[in-house]
Parts: sequence; structure tokens; C-alpha cells
Amino acid sequence: MSAHSEFDLIARYFQRPVASDRIQLGIGDDCAVVQATRPLALSIDTLNAGVHFPHSSTPQDIARKAVAVNLSDLAAMGAAPVWAMLALSLPEADEAWLHAFSEALHAALAEHGVALVGGDTTQGSLSISLQVAGELAWPGHMRRGGACAGHRIYVTGTLGDAALGLQCAQNPALARKLDPVQRDFLLARLNRPEARLAFGQQLAAICPCAIDVSDGLLADLGHVLAASGCGARIEIGKLPLSGAARHAFARVSEGRIDWQMVLAHGDDYELCFTLPASRESAMRDMARAESLPVHCIGEITGDGGLVLVDENGAPLSLQQLGIDRAGFDHFSDSA
Amino acid sequence: MSAHSEFDLIARYFQRPVASDRIQLGIGDDCAVVQATRPLALSIDTLNAGVHFPHSSTPQDIARKAVAVNLSDLAAMGAAPVWAMLALSLPEADEAWLHAFSEALHAALAEHGVALVGGDTTQGSLSISLQVAGELAWPGHMRRGGACAGHRIYVTGTLGDAALGLQCAQNPALARKLDPVQRDFLLARLNRPEARLAFGQQLAAICPCAIDVSDGLLADLGHVLAASGCGARIEIGKLPLSGAARHAFARVSEGRIDWQMVLAHGDDYELCFTLPASRESAMRDMARAESLPVHCIGEITGDGGLVLVDENGAPLSLQQLGIDRAGFDHFSDSA
Repeated sequence: MSAHSEFDLIARYFQRPVASDRIQLGIGDDCAVVQATRPLALSIDTLNAGVHFPHSSTPQDIARKAVAVNLSDLAAMGAAPVWAMLALSLPEADEAWLHAFSEALHAALAEHGVALVGGDTTQGSLSISLQVAGELAWPGHMRRGGACAGHRIYVTGTLGDAALGLQCAQNPALARKLDPVQRDFLLARLNRPEARLAFGQQLAAICPCAIDVSDGLLADLGHVLAASGCGARIEIGKLPLSGAARHAFARVSEGRIDWQMVLAHGDDYELCFTLPASRESAMRDMARAESLPVHCIGEITGDGGLVLVDENGAPLSLQQLGIDRAGFDHFSDSA
Repeated sequence: MSAHSEFDLIARYFQRPVASDRIQLGIGDDCAVVQATRPLALSIDTLNAGVHFPHSSTPQDIARKAVAVNLSDLAAMGAAPVWAMLALSLPEADEAWLHAFSEALHAALAEHGVALVGGDTTQGSLSISLQVAGELAWPGHMRRGGACAGHRIYVTGTLGDAALGLQCAQNPALARKLDPVQRDFLLARLNRPEARLAFGQQLAAICPCAIDVSDGLLADLGHVLAASGCGARIEIGKLPLSGAARHAFARVSEGRIDWQMVLAHGDDYELCFTLPASRESAMRDMARAESLPVHCIGEITGDGGLVLVDENGAPLSLQQLGIDRAGFDHFSDSA
């Protein structure tokens, strides 16, 4: 009982006034009460210490990442986030940790107009499950199963930064080889990813197929191909790398790109989507309005699985690219 | 990555066709898509191994309890459950455990017409967070803050059974002292509680104030008093005990009732609610229709905190009742 009470008190860190016409009752009763006028997209994601983030992560970074990971799922559906619920397990009621975590969580949610309407705080291994709901202006559009042969394949932003950021966080000797500005960029991409919400909401008006790149492009594109019954041809020379990633590869591997990091690590929280060529111009206007780089990386094919090709169109095996095949259950399922 | 893929495969255990006009898209995309026509009550609750259930619990009992604990919050709001989302962390992909857990989870949800629309399965300490949503036919009625001086206080079912069930589970010598039928009743109350959903939905039409008894009557009634700005007078002789509980107290403590178990342990998932006397008759008709025993245990007072009295109206201290005061942060806050 005393642990119970202690953890109930903790909930007060998360109780804030909410100002939304959709929230009738927030934290503090048996349930929250909400009223949605449009179809809702719902997602829940868990971050466990030692699995999804290093034990050394700051409470601020954990909170921001929990928010970004969940909002990224809403972005991939084109939903506008409305509310969130938090299930937080932690080993002990560490007030300093809780203060920092709750402040960062509220700030990250407020940035996107999201109200924290409820939650449960319990004793256990450090684990954060966040559930989010967003309203859909264009229900029925973006699905994993919406890709068709002939569609072009696009990704927002750059790939592999979070993998390199993790290397920097785990390997101080490697981190010291990098220019501090570039290193900090990679660490920020790991610890403070940004969901592509605004672009996703616009894109949903014209795009039949999107997914967020959380498990790595090969795995996530694999989900799209499996759901759509298609294949894909990806030109690896077109995969977007950040200046910081190129800098890191130059410093640590003489410019040799680690394709495992770029294609398979995930955690980048960019959007991968497919479009008929006729809609590219409209999409580019949307991306420009958000100052978001978008790159075409290949095209959807009728079958043949997922094929990676070099600049001359020659197929490249995962082995040739130094990618550990064993990691790709998704991939081998779908390709 | 290989752990990632493995845990992604696990998600297949939870993917079932859903038949509800409110569910447009279930498990298998970035988000679920739902459409609610009424205000929604939302709750999330976590069960951690070793904290909320013994490590020895069967996957079936864990699944049923996760469902009951969450649905009990909906019952206290008078909501009709519609969908659920699952965040499951487990140390390894144990197929036998997962099969048993997922079957029991689906069965427990299906019993109440609840669709599992999404989730996340991750590696970590065994932890189950379930988020549930229910539709409200009578929004704005039952709240923790709705109690008024003069209201009678009622509880459904019986109190203390789950505490005794836990004793039986943890102490085989004690369990052997009990008649097997009575022991199994207490274990069932611990492991397979039933949310008072049907009664709660009816009650919401006439009742201003309800809470579910998850943390123990003293703590939960304390929440009501704090939110309502009232006191309460509880006659301990009117607290409803099951035949099995009386049997257990007769066998293990010569009939002396352990009030800590009855008033403070919680885990019973009954409803505690308050009503003006004029509505008692309507409430009793509802309870009769559900074959649910309901007992009046005292009344709401203007102030004076929470007072426990014997059959002659004489106040009893927690100490006199053998209740560990230290456990009652809620209580001391509100009383």
C-alpha cells in the first residue's frame, strides 16, 4: 500500500489543466472523457530502458523520444494529434527524474497541441508506454497496403543518423573523432527525433501509401510490400544521407558507407511513401512549404521482392552491402 | 534487429478480424482507425510482474486481470467498452506463454464485445499496459467529485476476497486450512475479477458519484471525499463480506476479521458509489436485474473526514481495527 500511495502521488506530476474542446475530463477520475468529431488514428508504443534507449539517457530525452515515436505513427497516417495517455513504470519515485521527465513530456506534447488526459504510474523496470490519438481529415488514404506498381518511392529527411548517433553515445572514442557540430547533430537525431506531422497531414490528401521508418527502411518498406503485394527497386545511390553522416563515415571508415546503419537500424522516424509520378509536383509543393527535403529513392515493381541496385542498375546483394541478413525477418518474409 | 523482428512476429498472436462499425482499421498498420459517435471514456492500467501479480501467475490469469482492471475503470464511469490497445513487454518470445495469454486476452475482451485494435510488443520485464475506450450514454454523471452530504454510500459485491485470495496463493499452509470450494472462490476473486460493467452503465443514469475499488475502500473512498470536499461515516458492521471470507477468517483467526484486508488491500474491482436516498429504490431495481448484491455501508457527511464506527455508532480508530496507518497516504490526505 505505501508503494501504491507513493506512486499515486507521482501522478500529480502529470496533472495539468487542458484547454481543448475535445477534452471533457482530464487526469484525476477513473477515466478521461473525450469527444471526437472525426475518425481517430490510434497508436501505442513502448520504450524500455536498455532496449529502446540506453540506461544513461536523460529523462528529457526519454520523454521527447516517447512523444516523437508515437507521433511519428500518427504522421504516417496523416493524423493531427489530439490527446495522449501515459503508462509509466519506474523502479522508485525519484522526484528529480520525475520532475525533469514530466516537464519535458508536457513540453513535447504541448508543442503539437496534445493534451495528456490520463495515465498510470506504477513500480517496475523503467518503461514508458504512450498511447496517442489523432484526428483524420482524410480517412482511408494512407495505408501500408496502398502501393502500386509504377509508384515512385520517397523518403523524407535523411537515413542512418540515429544509428550513427547511437554509436557516438556508446563509443566516446568514436565520438571524439567527429567535429562537435556534426556529432551533436547525430546525437540530436537519436535523442530528439521529430515526427513529420505537418507534412504527413498535407500528404494524406494525395498519397495512398505511407509508413514511418522506425525499424529501418528495409524492414518498413518490407511491410509496405507485404501489405501491397508488390516489389520494389531501390537505387542505393539515391538514399539521402545527411552531411553529418557523410562526415562521420569519412572520419571513421574512410568514406565507406555502413549500409546496415542506413538501411537497417531504424529510429530515424522519417516517412517513406509512394505516389504515382503525376502527383510528384503537388507533393513537392507540400514539402517545400514545410522546408522538408524529400528524395525519390526508387520505384514500386509488380513483383520480384525488394531489389537494391547500384547507379548502373546492377543488383546488389545484402552481403555485398555488408548487411547482416539474419536481421531481416521482415524483409525475407516480404521479399 | 533480430530481437525486433522476433517481437514483431509476436504481434501476429494478437491480430484477429474485428467486426464493429466503429473500427475502420485494426492491427497491422501504423495506427488503428476508429470512429466514435458518442463521448468516450478512456483508461490505461499497467500490471507488472512481481508488483501487481505474482511471478507464478498463469498467462490466462494475467490476461483476464489486465482486462478486468481496465474495464472496471470504464464501469465506474458507466461506459460501454468498445476497443482496447495492448502494450506488452516480455523478457523473451515464449510461444507457449504468448499463445495462452493471447487466447485468454481475446476471450476476455470478446466477452464484453471489445475489439483489440492495436498494440506494441517489446522486449523487457514482463509488463502489460492495456488502454481501453468506452462510449458514454450518460456523459457528465458519475464523477469522483459528485458526492454530497446526506448521500448514502454503497458498494457492490463483497470486499476483502482478493486479499484473502492472495494469502492463499502465497501461503500454501494457510490455503490448506480452507475448504477447497471457499479457497477456489477467493482465488478466483483474485485472479479473475469481473468488472461491474452492466450495472455501471445502468447506474450512470441516476448516480452522480462512483469509483471502482481497486486500491482498497479507504483509499478509493478517500479519493471521492477529496474530490467532493465531503466527509463520510462508514459502519464497519455493514461492510459486505463473502461467505468464503467469513469461512477463511473463522479458520485462520478464530473469526476475527482482518480489516486491513477488507478496507485497505484493494484488488476487488467492485463499485463504490453515492446516491440521495430518494434514488435507492431505482438503483435496487437495477442491481436486482443484474443479480448483483449492493450494500449501503454508510453516508456522506459535510466534513469530519472519513470516520469508521461500530454498530453502536462509536468511532473506531484505524489502530483499533489493526490497520497499518502508514499505508494510507490517500486517506490522510483527504480525511
